[in-house]
Amino acid sequence: MMKKTAAGADLSPNLAKETLKPSAFLNPVPVVMCSAQHAGVSDIITVAWCGTINSDPPMISVSIRKSRYSYDLIKNSGKVCVNLVSEALLKACDLCGVRSGRDIDKFAATGLTPVSSPIHGIPMIGEAPVNLECSVDRVIELGSHDMFLLNVDGVYVSGAIIDAGGKADLKKAGLVAYCHGEYYALGEILGFFGYSVAGADALARRTRR
Amino acid sequence: MMKKTAAGADLSPNLAKETLKPSAFLNPVPVVMCSAQHAGVSDIITVAWCGTINSDPPMISVSIRKSRYSYDLIKNSGKVCVNLVSEALLKACDLCGVRSGRDIDKFAATGLTPVSSPIHGIPMIGEAPVNLECSVDRVIELGSHDMFLLNVDGVYVSGAIIDAGGKADLKKAGLVAYCHGEYYALGEILGFFGYSVAGADALARRTRR
Repeated sequence: MMKKTAAGADLSPNLAKETLKPSAFLNPVPVVMCSAQHAGVSDIITVAWCGTINSDPPMISVSIRKSRYSYDLIKNSGKVCVNLVSEALLKACDLCGVRSGRDIDKFAATGLTPVSSPIHGIPMIGEAPVNLECSVDRVIELGSHDMFLLNVDGVYVSGAIIDAGGKADLKKAGLVAYCHGEYYALGEILGFFGYSVAGADALARRTRR
Repeated sequence: MMKKTAAGADLSPNLAKETLKPSAFLNPVPVVMCSAQHAGVSDIITVAWCGTINSDPPMISVSIRKSRYSYDLIKNSGKVCVNLVSEALLKACDLCGVRSGRDIDKFAATGLTPVSSPIHGIPMIGEAPVNLECSVDRVIELGSHDMFLLNVDGVYVSGAIIDAGGKADLKKAGLVAYCHGEYYALGEILGFFGYSVAGADALARRTRR
């Protein structure tokens, strides 16, 4: 059965649904590398359980198991840098998700460059296209994970992805998404926020690249 | 300047960073359609400020401005369905993000099919490839947005994306990511969780499709 929605797409209602065991099946999600330092020890942990939680003041969340080596560094220092992941960084990102800082020095193992963050003086990943320098607002225990609510105090973007008008052009960053155990490149641009109600002028301007 | 990391990728440290005004610059993020109902009124709101926050019990968060029409429906009923967005659903998804339920009936305007959820009896979007039936654990005021911490009580997946072994294959779902104002298709699969340390057997098995 096919039907046409008012918005124009052909859609078959997927009414024959299979019931799965409840899980956090939200997809795709971001994947980021969180870098932290406390008492002279630094580490990088890869996190996919993260998201934007507030616009003003800007806040994001990352959820981390108490058992992780980075957990105490972030909890005790109250600071963390959230580094966005490009395709070039992906293998290092994956490594930082499957190895523990108890066993290896993540910066040494990946060859990534720690750069002291301007406000809090914690290591940011120099090679990341975007660094979000954050402080911990509060920590909420949820079960398997603790959720860190973070204030975004500083945003630093690679000059290579700043366009001629001085704005960040994330299309140049080659960012990666995580979906059900796999890492994906971002593919075709399908539309922009508001495109469903945009006039012909806006549509032409925003799709002319 | 180019250097080779231990992980094998060529990376130039992007040390020349531009400082931007602090914002919630996490990218890419999910984009979902949240459907809710209270006292006979239903609505759909599109949310990109969402994320996974806990594995066990499964929990996700969505952040919504108090001014939104759906806010009271979710707050007062304590229930919401988080519907994942496929490419076919995107135009309807965008419409539900720019129009208010005060002005239009979103189900009627999009032509989407409300299906009563098995546990809580709230409308799920029939055409969505995945429905997450949720209850509100708590609400946290953060400023511009209130964050709803949600328990995932039920997960329903379209039969069209269940593979021969009975597992959900999200590659068939055509899910969409949101990045800095634009909607993207998922592109090339770049790797799987653990691929950086996988043996030759696992690499061959996981990349043979």
